[in-house]
Amino acid sequence: MIGEKIYNLAKELFYINRSLTGDGVRETLEQVKKLIPIKIKEIPTGEKCFDWEVPKEWNCKEAYIITPEGEKICEYSKNNLHILQYSTPQNRQIDLKELDKHLYSLPDLPDAIPYVTSYYKENWGFCISQNDRNKLKEGVYKVFIDSELKNGSLTYADLIIPGKSKEEILFSTYICHPSLANDNLSGIILTTFLAKYILEKNTRFTYRFIFIPETIGSICYISKHLSKLKENVKAGFVVTCVGDNRDYSFLASRFEDTLADKIAIHVLKHTKKDFKRYSFLDRGSDERQYCSIGVDLPICSVMRSKYVEYKEYHTSLDDLSLISPIGFEGSFKVYKQIIDVLENNYRYKTTTICEPQLGKRGLYPAVSTPEQIKKVKYLRNIIAYADGNKDLIDIAEILKTNAYELIEIVKNLEEKKVLCRK
Amino acid sequence: MIGEKIYNLAKELFYINRSLTGDGVRETLEQVKKLIPIKIKEIPTGEKCFDWEVPKEWNCKEAYIITPEGEKICEYSKNNLHILQYSTPQNRQIDLKELDKHLYSLPDLPDAIPYVTSYYKENWGFCISQNDRNKLKEGVYKVFIDSELKNGSLTYADLIIPGKSKEEILFSTYICHPSLANDNLSGIILTTFLAKYILEKNTRFTYRFIFIPETIGSICYISKHLSKLKENVKAGFVVTCVGDNRDYSFLASRFEDTLADKIAIHVLKHTKKDFKRYSFLDRGSDERQYCSIGVDLPICSVMRSKYVEYKEYHTSLDDLSLISPIGFEGSFKVYKQIIDVLENNYRYKTTTICEPQLGKRGLYPAVSTPEQIKKVKYLRNIIAYADGNKDLIDIAEILKTNAYELIEIVKNLEEKKVLCRK
Amino acid sequence: MIGEKIYNLAKELFYINRSLTGDGVRETLEQVKKLIPIKIKEIPTGEKCFDWEVPKEWNCKEAYIITPEGEKICEYSKNNLHILQYSTPQNRQIDLKELDKHLYSLPDLPDAIPYVTSYYKENWGFCISQNDRNKLKEGVYKVFIDSELKNGSLTYADLIIPGKSKEEILFSTYICHPSLANDNLSGIILTTFLAKYILEKNTRFTYRFIFIPETIGSICYISKHLSKLKENVKAGFVVTCVGDNRDYSFLASRFEDTLADKIAIHVLKHTKKDFKRYSFLDRGSDERQYCSIGVDLPICSVMRSKYVEYKEYHTSLDDLSLISPIGFEGSFKVYKQIIDVLENNYRYKTTTICEPQLGKRGLYPAVSTPEQIKKVKYLRNIIAYADGNKDLIDIAEILKTNAYELIEIVKNLEEKKVLCRK
Repeated sequence: MIGEKIYNLAKELFYINRSLTGDGVRETLEQVKKLIPIKIKEIPTGEKCFDWEVPKEWNCKEAYIITPEGEKICEYSKNNLHILQYSTPQNRQIDLKELDKHLYSLPDLPDAIPYVTSYYKENWGFCISQNDRNKLKEGVYKVFIDSELKNGSLTYADLIIPGKSKEEILFSTYICHPSLANDNLSGIILTTFLAKYILEKNTRFTYRFIFIPETIGSICYISKHLSKLKENVKAGFVVTCVGDNRDYSFLASRFEDTLADKIAIHVLKHTKKDFKRYSFLDRGSDERQYCSIGVDLPICSVMRSKYVEYKEYHTSLDDLSLISPIGFEGSFKVYKQIIDVLENNYRYKTTTICEPQLGKRGLYPAVSTPEQIKKVKYLRNIIAYADGNKDLIDIAEILKTNAYELIEIVKNLEEKKVLCRK
Repeated sequence: MIGEKIYNLAKELFYINRSLTGDGVRETLEQVKKLIPIKIKEIPTGEKCFDWEVPKEWNCKEAYIITPEGEKICEYSKNNLHILQYSTPQNRQIDLKELDKHLYSLPDLPDAIPYVTSYYKENWGFCISQNDRNKLKEGVYKVFIDSELKNGSLTYADLIIPGKSKEEILFSTYICHPSLANDNLSGIILTTFLAKYILEKNTRFTYRFIFIPETIGSICYISKHLSKLKENVKAGFVVTCVGDNRDYSFLASRFEDTLADKIAIHVLKHTKKDFKRYSFLDRGSDERQYCSIGVDLPICSVMRSKYVEYKEYHTSLDDLSLISPIGFEGSFKVYKQIIDVLENNYRYKTTTICEPQLGKRGLYPAVSTPEQIKKVKYLRNIIAYADGNKDLIDIAEILKTNAYELIEIVKNLEEKKVLCRK
Repeated sequence: MIGEKIYNLAKELFYINRSLTGDGVRETLEQVKKLIPIKIKEIPTGEKCFDWEVPKEWNCKEAYIITPEGEKICEYSKNNLHILQYSTPQNRQIDLKELDKHLYSLPDLPDAIPYVTSYYKENWGFCISQNDRNKLKEGVYKVFIDSELKNGSLTYADLIIPGKSKEEILFSTYICHPSLANDNLSGIILTTFLAKYILEKNTRFTYRFIFIPETIGSICYISKHLSKLKENVKAGFVVTCVGDNRDYSFLASRFEDTLADKIAIHVLKHTKKDFKRYSFLDRGSDERQYCSIGVDLPICSVMRSKYVEYKEYHTSLDDLSLISPIGFEGSFKVYKQIIDVLENNYRYKTTTICEPQLGKRGLYPAVSTPEQIKKVKYLRNIIAYADGNKDLIDIAEILKTNAYELIEIVKNLEEKKVLCRK
């Protein structure tokens, strides 16, 4: 079962200390590179990307608080969510009132450690469960953060697998979250396995897989490849939150009706599980950049539980127990169907005027009982609508069936010269 | 009542032994020719029509089975449905097991003899009610079929009634079914009476009436007239299953929104009876060819109970008791409204800027009580929307009324020079 | 409260004897002129306007009936609704049977005096409550009407307030109804106050305010200004029935989707009160002319209770008690929002590729807690959809919020150079 393999990789990568930049990102990408031949790249701090600038690189070795009672809490080495991402180095003694300004917790999820960041304003802080925070007493606290915020670089990777056409299908995932399983370790790993699947095939499309820190990463990536992306990308997907086994979620592109939206909705409609449709208003990941005005790419997102919408989101509850082999299995199958349908999604045209004679091609039963008439209806309906303008998905939509199920039938009709590609 | 006349003709033609080809078809068309000046034509066996080839001509004089008890059953002369259409000549003795392979019956309708064909694969067989089949005992059966399958010709007919314009309205009906009343003797006869109606009028459109065997007939017909049909036909209808008095059915063209679809839906919406809408996915008659890719004609179908969808379909239960004068009366009225609206379906334009003064043309009451204001509203609404782009049906749709009811009003406005044709 | 001021003016103008033409109209316009600098104009009787001709001018000094008992009833001086508008002079004695032919009453509203006109056919008559009519006994009645129907002129007025652009927003109201409060004294007065509001502003658009008798007035006005109106008017509104405090009504233009329709529906959707949508089929005022074929202006109507649809309509029950300060307050607010949104309804475009960095412009919170992420969503959504094709209303529709609420946000984004006008 592919789901098992995917989940096993998740377990290996979960505890790496990822952030927007830094060695955790590098380590994660090196692990991925063992499976697929990605190219890892660095962009130096300060480089301009459109309206933005690559931030300083941040690394953290250790961080903790020592309570007035001498207890060591919020240890980074025990859970990397304890640190406010991009915290500056600290080594000081402060009272509870002062400390309190630097603590983040979630009163509604008192067991959970929240995930909080401060990339663009220098700050420091600790994330703590509300329950633990409530236990803190007046007194002098020692705060220790052994971090480094320096001119360095932003690390990302991509992998381009050439197909027969230079037209591209794009998969993008973000690599900036520390120990959070569904959001978005699951995306990194599923993307890796989708790339493995493509590497084993001889594809029609060229496939581009992108591993970037969210927001600044996609902005940098787009700034370096804008004209090529605009020219070639026919459909793309932000791969995130694909590891849990709850219902599917679909987040539309800004245009709402691109090839990516069309295939994603089509495949999800024919999945056994329900799915929830979100508009571009509910966006939250790198489709924000890919679909932004002037970039205008056809990128949507197929998820399980959508980020923000599930209670464990951006907390320590989004751990390895939230994701599962069966969750990955389902997500992989959906993305595989998307790929397989896209690869076969040609515009077909009948080769005859009027209906072809199916009988002489062995496609029609000799005796036309009412029952057999029904059987041949599906075949005829494909032929009836193959006008050279409708692609396979369009025809499947008219026939109210899954395009994936029609792939073999259409290939047969093509072999029998009843249909040709337009 | 026109329904009576139509039904009486049905009684006359019901028992003729029609099939895909042969003398029964010729006899039927000769009867029709007594009423309307159709041209009967023959296409020789073997002639190529697109992907098809005209089959051999089939005639059957007699056919029956003699049971081990010496009883003559499945007599063709008693009910021509007993024979598998296109059965080859047989004169042999066989046991029940062998006979059984050549029997067709309907377990769910045990009283009914089914209608079965084998045009394109040589075969023989008998159709029998399930009840009678159940009575058959072990023993030796004599099978006798005095039929002939030979190089001959396929017979069809058409009638073109020229109008002021060479733009055409097409009516097509199929003539290949033996003693089946609703499907499709009713179509042959209603088409005949529609042609009689047109012959008595001085029409705007040219009308083309086509009498053909289903599928191969329409393919042949289209192959001989493709460019003319594509150039001239503005709307058309496959006339079938129009004799029973149940609800109406509408089967859309492939394009779904042609003039034919528009007028058919419009008239049916304003008929007192309900109607059921079917998509082109539910097609089953010659619209399959007329609407096929590359032919692309605007052809839909207005029926009473749609073929396949009623229980008596393609069985001996589809007899003269299923159809009725009142059933025909309704169908004739619907098709007559379709014709009358089409004949008057111009794009109208107002002749004035701002509203015309209705009063000075005798179109407006002198005293404007609230009640009279309401009355004149209908008149004003036609004027308000007559922008030269909307045809009469469009305007009637906006006014949520039957275009048929507006014909006289619009003619009056045209006479009073308030409206002109665009 | 502006509603009070508006209502006070209604009280001043209510009792003036307005009709299609005549001194009551002139007096009303002179009162309006004290508040806003309208230009009052006259068109002589007999002048041709498209299909129409300016009618004679009508004035009435006194009118009444004296019953057989000597009682004076239906006194014009007590209620100007008692006279059939455009009644010819009368001074005669007639019996009840003859008188009855000239009486108008409403059996369903027995207390109400109806409002009836006969502009285009010479006639005379009295309007009377059904209760009073029932009391009339056999005998000789004296009928006295001191009116004058002569060659004179039709009076109207307009006011054009130039803006930065010659593109125009049009407001039209009708001045031909006698003592009827909601229909349409309310329209005259609200239009006056909207003009006052515009006079105090420095506007983008040019504003055109039109005060005309219904139908013939708008036809005359259009005939004199057709090409200018067609060239410049971007949106317009027939202001009528805006004084009561019941739900709002929207009457669509003929095109249904003009800028006027769009802004009116948008603002009404975000009003606390419900509103009822009427189609152009329900039209009844000067939009009939403004939207007629060949004129084709983008004119709709925002009302409170729509004419014809409320029970007091065109009767003496439509008096000062039906309208109220709070009713006017609401209508003024809606029209003010329409104006304010139109003035700011530009097509905006982002200035950056990919999202702009909000943080460095002080538009983004430094610490990205889940809560703050939500806050900034609204801001981002405006930027996400500002593609240079969508106007402010389009963006507000996508964001499911009131465009009026976005005006300040957008101005801020424009100042911060994140957005520019297209």
